[in-house]
Amino acid sequence: MAGRHFLHVPGPTNIPDRVLAAMHRPSEDHRSPIFPELTKPIFAAAKKLFKTEAGQVFLFPATGTGSWEAVLTNTLAAGDRVLAPRYGQFSHLWIELARKHGLDVVVQEEPWGTGASPEHIHDALRADTGHAIRAVLVVHNETATGVTSDVAAVRRAIDAAGHPALLFVDGVSAIGSIDFRMDEWGVDGAITGSQKGLMMPAGLGICCLSPKALEAGQAAKSRNPLRRAFFDIEDMQRSNKDGYFPYTPSLPMLYGMREALAILFEEGLENVFARHRYLAGGVRAAVLEGWKLPLCAKEPKWYSDTVSAVMVPAGTNGAAVISRAFSRYNLSLGSGLGEVAGKLFRIGHLGDLNELMCLAAVAGAEMAMLDVGIRVEPGSGVRAAESFYRAQGEAAAKLVAE
Amino acid sequence: MAGRHFLHVPGPTNIPDRVLAAMHRPSEDHRSPIFPELTKPIFAAAKKLFKTEAGQVFLFPATGTGSWEAVLTNTLAAGDRVLAPRYGQFSHLWIELARKHGLDVVVQEEPWGTGASPEHIHDALRADTGHAIRAVLVVHNETATGVTSDVAAVRRAIDAAGHPALLFVDGVSAIGSIDFRMDEWGVDGAITGSQKGLMMPAGLGICCLSPKALEAGQAAKSRNPLRRAFFDIEDMQRSNKDGYFPYTPSLPMLYGMREALAILFEEGLENVFARHRYLAGGVRAAVLEGWKLPLCAKEPKWYSDTVSAVMVPAGTNGAAVISRAFSRYNLSLGSGLGEVAGKLFRIGHLGDLNELMCLAAVAGAEMAMLDVGIRVEPGSGVRAAESFYRAQGEAAAKLVAE
Amino acid sequence: MAGRHFLHVPGPTNIPDRVLAAMHRPSEDHRSPIFPELTKPIFAAAKKLFKTEAGQVFLFPATGTGSWEAVLTNTLAAGDRVLAPRYGQFSHLWIELARKHGLDVVVQEEPWGTGASPEHIHDALRADTGHAIRAVLVVHNETATGVTSDVAAVRRAIDAAGHPALLFVDGVSAIGSIDFRMDEWGVDGAITGSQKGLMMPAGLGICCLSPKALEAGQAAKSRNPLRRAFFDIEDMQRSNKDGYFPYTPSLPMLYGMREALAILFEEGLENVFARHRYLAGGVRAAVLEGWKLPLCAKEPKWYSDTVSAVMVPAGTNGAAVISRAFSRYNLSLGSGLGEVAGKLFRIGHLGDLNELMCLAAVAGAEMAMLDVGIRVEPGSGVRAAESFYRAQGEAAAKLVAE
Amino acid sequence: MAGRHFLHVPGPTNIPDRVLAAMHRPSEDHRSPIFPELTKPIFAAAKKLFKTEAGQVFLFPATGTGSWEAVLTNTLAAGDRVLAPRYGQFSHLWIELARKHGLDVVVQEEPWGTGASPEHIHDALRADTGHAIRAVLVVHNETATGVTSDVAAVRRAIDAAGHPALLFVDGVSAIGSIDFRMDEWGVDGAITGSQKGLMMPAGLGICCLSPKALEAGQAAKSRNPLRRAFFDIEDMQRSNKDGYFPYTPSLPMLYGMREALAILFEEGLENVFARHRYLAGGVRAAVLEGWKLPLCAKEPKWYSDTVSAVMVPAGTNGAAVISRAFSRYNLSLGSGLGEVAGKLFRIGHLGDLNELMCLAAVAGAEMAMLDVGIRVEPGSGVRAAESFYRAQGEAAAKLVAE
Repeated sequence: MAGRHFLHVPGPTNIPDRVLAAMHRPSEDHRSPIFPELTKPIFAAAKKLFKTEAGQVFLFPATGTGSWEAVLTNTLAAGDRVLAPRYGQFSHLWIELARKHGLDVVVQEEPWGTGASPEHIHDALRADTGHAIRAVLVVHNETATGVTSDVAAVRRAIDAAGHPALLFVDGVSAIGSIDFRMDEWGVDGAITGSQKGLMMPAGLGICCLSPKALEAGQAAKSRNPLRRAFFDIEDMQRSNKDGYFPYTPSLPMLYGMREALAILFEEGLENVFARHRYLAGGVRAAVLEGWKLPLCAKEPKWYSDTVSAVMVPAGTNGAAVISRAFSRYNLSLGSGLGEVAGKLFRIGHLGDLNELMCLAAVAGAEMAMLDVGIRVEPGSGVRAAESFYRAQGEAAAKLVAE
Repeated sequence: MAGRHFLHVPGPTNIPDRVLAAMHRPSEDHRSPIFPELTKPIFAAAKKLFKTEAGQVFLFPATGTGSWEAVLTNTLAAGDRVLAPRYGQFSHLWIELARKHGLDVVVQEEPWGTGASPEHIHDALRADTGHAIRAVLVVHNETATGVTSDVAAVRRAIDAAGHPALLFVDGVSAIGSIDFRMDEWGVDGAITGSQKGLMMPAGLGICCLSPKALEAGQAAKSRNPLRRAFFDIEDMQRSNKDGYFPYTPSLPMLYGMREALAILFEEGLENVFARHRYLAGGVRAAVLEGWKLPLCAKEPKWYSDTVSAVMVPAGTNGAAVISRAFSRYNLSLGSGLGEVAGKLFRIGHLGDLNELMCLAAVAGAEMAMLDVGIRVEPGSGVRAAESFYRAQGEAAAKLVAE
Repeated sequence: MAGRHFLHVPGPTNIPDRVLAAMHRPSEDHRSPIFPELTKPIFAAAKKLFKTEAGQVFLFPATGTGSWEAVLTNTLAAGDRVLAPRYGQFSHLWIELARKHGLDVVVQEEPWGTGASPEHIHDALRADTGHAIRAVLVVHNETATGVTSDVAAVRRAIDAAGHPALLFVDGVSAIGSIDFRMDEWGVDGAITGSQKGLMMPAGLGICCLSPKALEAGQAAKSRNPLRRAFFDIEDMQRSNKDGYFPYTPSLPMLYGMREALAILFEEGLENVFARHRYLAGGVRAAVLEGWKLPLCAKEPKWYSDTVSAVMVPAGTNGAAVISRAFSRYNLSLGSGLGEVAGKLFRIGHLGDLNELMCLAAVAGAEMAMLDVGIRVEPGSGVRAAESFYRAQGEAAAKLVAE
Repeated sequence: MAGRHFLHVPGPTNIPDRVLAAMHRPSEDHRSPIFPELTKPIFAAAKKLFKTEAGQVFLFPATGTGSWEAVLTNTLAAGDRVLAPRYGQFSHLWIELARKHGLDVVVQEEPWGTGASPEHIHDALRADTGHAIRAVLVVHNETATGVTSDVAAVRRAIDAAGHPALLFVDGVSAIGSIDFRMDEWGVDGAITGSQKGLMMPAGLGICCLSPKALEAGQAAKSRNPLRRAFFDIEDMQRSNKDGYFPYTPSLPMLYGMREALAILFEEGLENVFARHRYLAGGVRAAVLEGWKLPLCAKEPKWYSDTVSAVMVPAGTNGAAVISRAFSRYNLSLGSGLGEVAGKLFRIGHLGDLNELMCLAAVAGAEMAMLDVGIRVEPGSGVRAAESFYRAQGEAAAKLVAE
């Protein structure tokens, strides 16, 4: 098909040309004396991305799924109990992964369309007087439903319960796009991948552990430590401290990450977050004011600035919209997963993105809906989004420009 | 600025990733024994692009301006008279170039917004009983005004006048995007560049000469032949016949052209033309039905399928729209040139393009107009274009898919 | 430093420009309906690379280290006994990884500079009358010492012992460069990475399991199965069968692998092997006949066609040669690892390589040796290698050309 | 053929990966308000490359051949007399081009293997008492014979003759590789292309005119000025002064040039020259001391640091060496042109190059010579070059490193 494809799944996201160019490099010796000149600044910049000074960053040649595994297996022992609210496909998959590794996961079911409940977490921890719960697992931005949870409030709930549990946060579709504060929020294990806010291909599993999490890992050794080798952070630590890796790293991904981080910090992290909020605002205006369709996220406080899950009317199928958008309009939308399969389609609006890209996605989605019989008002989404961008945009644009 | 820039000037056009990748190659020896394996198929494919069997294609490491020069200097003698209608900036510049080379240009002024008049050409040639006019110079698609002339009708007019003049056609913003038939239309010199329908960067001046034009070049030698060296086709012919060039060619441009031609023929030239007509239809719907603004092209018969020049209301300035679109919406529009400066802005819709790209351009243009005080109905352009694409698109889409 | 770096570590290897170009692509939706058009042919071609029809290939967004882990954790249970000869750093590291996962590894120490001993393996299995040994772990090409083991002979030894043990083979620096025959040799788990014979960056952990290995994995579930999630092949199988992956794959690596496999099969696998043998012959001529230095590999039968480990004279340090070559001659050589640290340097000669690249490496190595006081005859290595290539090369060259 | 091709023609030269990556960019509007941010620094850096403050640089989307034409047609009138020594194929071709444009070229024949004779030029100008000679045309580095002329001495000869002739210098295979000083040497028109010392593809014709040359161009208008349009510098001046171009420039070439100039100035121009001298020294050691073959350049004072033309023994054919090197060793050498066709082969050693690349070229050339029956001592060239690099290299290496 002619022309550029419009990629509006909530990850992988569009890769800036600068990043692609940075990745297009000949091979080199990853044990050379100059190799640390590449790697050390990446580790330093990654800490700024996580907003941490005390934490330690790990870069696995893997994916976010691998980061889930790395954080759990390096800090816990077999049979350890963890608390995990479930409110979407990705919180569900993390729970499944924890169980595969032999953890005892206490699941808090929350309605899909909502997120982590600080109250429920507080209550569960308060009830856990024996401190059997070693960690709380929270997905910051549930990509399947377009819901963002309040991680700071979760931390406050843990503290209010006087509970020593570690706080592990999946920030895969959040970090680098919406605000995340490892140290300030007391996050002990933060997880992300390269293919979302970092605007790269998949292929790096990135995580960051707090000193408390590292100590927990040492302590776990005296119990029945979880097995790991590829994801072992001690091998990583030994090599990373000099700028190397215990096995061959993916050089294009390191060069890409250096460039991606440079792009983020050139724009300024806070400007990046403001831009995501602003672009998301336009998309939400299209959905709510233009098309008059509900979002999966049940209340504004849950609205995600990186992905919007649009509920299609009863009797229609979100999958048909996605299929039509892809085959007819060169547009990739995200599908409904798990218990919302068919009930929605998702518009990803994260990463290297601007107004016209979002408007094109909205236009494509509204044409696709009309084509498959969903009777939204023609043009209404784009008109509402344009209106939002024109009205609200000046301030945001100014902020971005500064 | 974050996100992809939307390039909607009428050239240079968007370069497909496949073409960029093909151009990203190490250097090589352009005199190697295997070099003709690259070049010979390019010459063959280029002839199909011009729809010629008898013509001879020349590839100069230059631009369309160089092709103008190559066609004239290799076929005419100093002081030769040529007939050239003028109806826009590019017909004007070609006339200027011809004069710089010492040709005696008889200019037919046509209103900007119209194109070459077969009647006027017929009359001028009929009156030229001594056959002093050696050639007629016609710009197929006047990029400055969004006007396409009827080249076949011009040929019929020349023939009807019983005049032996050569027919030279500037197809820079036409060839590869709208129908062009060198042999069938009796074009003697066809001119294009790489940065329009060929979807490459500027850097190749491409032209094609008919046997009659080649003979005219030989005959001109006995008069006072125009000087040329860089653009000398005889040096080219000597080297090209074996697949080489008389001086170092631009290798990335050759590799890019091979890939671009492959892309065009994979889609199918007729499908490419249909797609341009279809995409242009949506943009025109936005302008005429949505915004209710006039095009510079005065009648439907002049409408160009590669660029639309939108007249802004009296008292407003097209340049302000362009400036706003660029600085605020990451969108490049074309400006008014020459006598239409400030009176219009242009939306290029040629090359590697699809519906959502055009809709994004329309959205950006309508926001920019509103921002600078041009009171079109918000969202009206996108709504009209979407409607066109949905209604008219099925047939075209089917054709494209076949 | 000006000019091209000469990368002659035994991996990562030089990436062909075609592969780099193939990897330079915009992002896309890995759940789109057309995605399997990319992936299915890759799986099919990978089976040809392993020379298997019955085996099943797995592609993890990881590295060879991850493949080690995937093969073991998907086929064995905690506490299972495996037999592993150790004769270099990589056989050592695999053993360590197996132990980290709770396997009971019986190590057969073989002198570094030799390889797997079919006799010793036969004897150990014959003695294991209770069939406690579940698998034999063999490194096909020990990258640290430049030693290739005879995998077919190992299989014959296992069979001669009448033992049902699985045969797992690390082919990281072998597969795609020297002959490997999964089915014919009865290999049950074959392991490789992307950054050696596949001529890509690191970032794919590739393995192939025989039906017998897959059955063993099912059987292991009833014991105390090894934990895995990221490396779980059942999740892979469920998604792979339709051309998808259970989590986001690295798209550039898939596009790169498609191109790399195309390159290998265009040359022809047997020609690739012949080329490696031929190029290695020249390097060995330089070492043995030119410089008159010993290889680490103790006998010709152990000589590796992908890497030569050159012993430096007593009292000199291989690390000094490597350092000099890197800083002065823009040449990366491999260092001595583990118990041969400092005693040797390694010249990798695998992947996308030709005579002049090998000669440049030999030239750089001999200059670096002279610079640090190792008194080889100036120019002797290049002269011997040239001589070899000229004498032996015709036949190989012809084969390659056919 | 597997592995990297070794490109050792004297242009086009190897393109650094940084330059290729810089050229790999999406298209953009060359009339945008930010476009001058790209172009203005390029013009400024180009002046440093020419070592001029007073001169004006022009960048044509063409080649060095176009630059020849631009310098002549913008400064002279039809029938003007120019003086041009001829000592190789490129001085010959420039003379031919001048004649095609109607100039009256007085040719001084110098033996091929020598260069411009300041004495002969002095004598010719002294004899031209009427100052009919408007310009002297000198090829700084005659690529066909590997001869560098002394441009400063030519200037002194012109001045000593008290003659006002302009000095035009073809620096195509010199500028950016060997010392060139526009202002200090009183050069009035300097010519180069992108595909030599600038390490880019062909596609930019670059020239620089002194104020005196620009005035001569104005004065020529009152005679019978040479025709030009594509190469008209007045159109360029009008647009360039604001950072624009009169017609579409080749954007990849501009981005490539920005990066190439950055690379040259990062290394330091004087270091670049020293490196070329040093690398050339090794190649000459191979030819003269190793192979004991003569260079085409008749005396050391003519030796070129960018290309060495190696005379093959009587009865043998340089073309056979080139053919063998290409087809068997993946090495491109330059051929004998014009009157030295068959009598020599050329090794280009300019651009992005280092010792091992030169050694590989020497190795390939000596193998190819032996293969076609030229009885040089096996390995002798590489041994001599290695010896040179090791002995002479320290000082140069230090200089380069500083």
